[in-house]
Amino acid sequence: MKQDLDALMRKHDINYLWISGPAQHNPNMVYFTGGCHVTNADLFYIPGQTPILLHGMMEREEAAKTGYRLISYSNYPIQQFLTPANNDMAEASALRYKQILKDLGINTGKVMLYGVREFGPFFSLITRLQQLLPELAFVGDPLDLIMVEARATKSSEEIERIRQMGIITTSVVQKTRDLLTSHQVVDEKLIKSDGQPLTIGDVKARINLWLAEAGVENPEGTIFAIGRDGGIPHSSGTPSDPIKLGQAIVYDIFPCEAGGGYFYDFTRTWCLGYAPDEVLKAYEQVKQVYDTVVSELEVGVNPARYQARTCELYEAMGHETIRQNPKIEQGYIHNLGHGVGLDVHEKPFTGLENDPTNLLKVGSVMTIEPGLYYPEKGFGIRLEDTWYVKPDRTFAKFVDFPMDLVIPMKGG
Amino acid sequence: MKQDLDALMRKHDINYLWISGPAQHNPNMVYFTGGCHVTNADLFYIPGQTPILLHGMMEREEAAKTGYRLISYSNYPIQQFLTPANNDMAEASALRYKQILKDLGINTGKVMLYGVREFGPFFSLITRLQQLLPELAFVGDPLDLIMVEARATKSSEEIERIRQMGIITTSVVQKTRDLLTSHQVVDEKLIKSDGQPLTIGDVKARINLWLAEAGVENPEGTIFAIGRDGGIPHSSGTPSDPIKLGQAIVYDIFPCEAGGGYFYDFTRTWCLGYAPDEVLKAYEQVKQVYDTVVSELEVGVNPARYQARTCELYEAMGHETIRQNPKIEQGYIHNLGHGVGLDVHEKPFTGLENDPTNLLKVGSVMTIEPGLYYPEKGFGIRLEDTWYVKPDRTFAKFVDFPMDLVIPMKGG
Repeated sequence: MKQDLDALMRKHDINYLWISGPAQHNPNMVYFTGGCHVTNADLFYIPGQTPILLHGMMEREEAAKTGYRLISYSNYPIQQFLTPANNDMAEASALRYKQILKDLGINTGKVMLYGVREFGPFFSLITRLQQLLPELAFVGDPLDLIMVEARATKSSEEIERIRQMGIITTSVVQKTRDLLTSHQVVDEKLIKSDGQPLTIGDVKARINLWLAEAGVENPEGTIFAIGRDGGIPHSSGTPSDPIKLGQAIVYDIFPCEAGGGYFYDFTRTWCLGYAPDEVLKAYEQVKQVYDTVVSELEVGVNPARYQARTCELYEAMGHETIRQNPKIEQGYIHNLGHGVGLDVHEKPFTGLENDPTNLLKVGSVMTIEPGLYYPEKGFGIRLEDTWYVKPDRTFAKFVDFPMDLVIPMKGG
Repeated sequence: MKQDLDALMRKHDINYLWISGPAQHNPNMVYFTGGCHVTNADLFYIPGQTPILLHGMMEREEAAKTGYRLISYSNYPIQQFLTPANNDMAEASALRYKQILKDLGINTGKVMLYGVREFGPFFSLITRLQQLLPELAFVGDPLDLIMVEARATKSSEEIERIRQMGIITTSVVQKTRDLLTSHQVVDEKLIKSDGQPLTIGDVKARINLWLAEAGVENPEGTIFAIGRDGGIPHSSGTPSDPIKLGQAIVYDIFPCEAGGGYFYDFTRTWCLGYAPDEVLKAYEQVKQVYDTVVSELEVGVNPARYQARTCELYEAMGHETIRQNPKIEQGYIHNLGHGVGLDVHEKPFTGLENDPTNLLKVGSVMTIEPGLYYPEKGFGIRLEDTWYVKPDRTFAKFVDFPMDLVIPMKGG
């Protein structure tokens, strides 16, 4: 949680955080700013001080919504740092930031760098600044020690925002189910009122509309994949594919608040009308693994334990798993789950068995999403809900939604 | 254009391009991949070779859509680079990429780095790689010499994609206009069928829906700002504000293709029913500046010329301008225009007077968007179209749309 930041910075000997880039679709910036509409900014966090937000003069009113200490870039006109002898914009930019850091009292110690933005220009700036300011050490956070670690446990306000996204997500899933079952079936295909087959693309267009109506975004898209496509975990589906009875549809939907806020992540697998025996059997195995893992969840452990447990369960059922061979393309081929927050994939992860900070704690949010994939047999199965750890150390699902495989069709 | 890349790389002594991050909402990656659904990738471009795309095994089918040479990260299991003596994931990641670069024959020369992604982990990786591979020099491109320069002139295919976005954008603007004029007016406020005032938030929700229906995104939002908000160029509007007659509405809309593709950028200023004299006068001056500048556009010049010309015209009309004082908050306070492509703001810019590569050329796409801002008087005006340079060296607007200020209301 945010109040852990200062202790994390002390623990890892970091004096300042510098988050660069837009204030939207930039998780570490949104964590501070709440996602105001500032297209280009630099946020400096110094423990014990109000965060400082550098912003364009034209965006001052949006920047003011943060309540932070504001400084307009126009206070440091770039022209002031260009001279006839030094007419290099990149060098002028470095001299400008040198002055800004000096004025902010950022003059000695470690500066940890964050921000989703185009890499090259900021890399060039930091490389030059490092030469201009040898008393400072500019460092990245590849092990996610500070910001991502703070974000990995959620406050009650964050939990409620994620729940709200869960409610919206499952309401769209319900609408999708209703849309499918409202169609006529001819020769095992769903048929629209114009006589044409309903396609994956048609359904995705409606999903996008419902998400827009709900005022949320799906920047990473939606997976609505049928048959063999569903057997390739990140195939998002082929728009022209018709929707047929008896074929497994993997529907994985992960929208976020507008502007790049909190995500939800949810998957169901459906067979319209009926399910072939081998699909039904795989579904029942996935459901059994899901139920077993959920029943065994504990606070204080590294969730990699549940990835191992999932592999163990699947192997006992005769499936090949990724722990036996990281290159397999069928069987159980991915991780069991991941944290969800301002990133759709964040700490904790079920694949970080060696990271001592990767733990299930009060405020952790994590998906449980076992699956089985047999693209050559023409199907994949995945079931996913997002769970969290309550203050009483028990686990709860954010939102309930039926897990049924077979969706009965009208008159079917 | 893309075929300029090799010459630009030779000119600036760059041997390799390395673009990192997702394949969507990552302009330099989309330029190569076309925006397939790969959430995490590294693309290496070596002149004369098919680009190389590193991707997660689970995303192989999406990655295959590029037609590039594919390498799965699973060919380089991270565990292989961890030893009991070296149990540092960040170091293992650097050793892994060292091996990848070696296998790709990237062993000496300059590697230019691109990619919209979280900065810190990649910064840490590059810093370590630089130590491991002293024969390579990893550099950024702060002066936009290579990728952005290639992207600054568009192929005929890109021009048509931008035009298609222009057609969608203006169709949404027309729908917005129709929505507004369909409302009843009570006490100068637009009133919904439930008797409540129509608000900025209501209109924005409909704009979002129409954009979603058209299958496009607006990752940077939409400005629909009335009165004083319209006088602050990047205020996006206050959702609860009612929509009143006689107040200037600045409507700036800049959607892009789904997944972060080509943008369009367009602004109109409307007064519903009637316009107060001082708003009408400012509008006429903005329109006059727009028409004058457009009539003077020439190929081969730095468009900063037109920023200077715009300031000259406004100053002659008695308005303060940003060239007189970069900190002003009223008058003419921004730049005249910018390129549009996979970024909503890209080369050429009207603010880069000292950059010899910042030129209007065949294939250039640039907005012309003069404005006047008087927040204390409760209004702003901006008019914007996106233009391009045709192969015959003449300038053309992508899409025509009326520039009228006053939108008559029913019975008004």
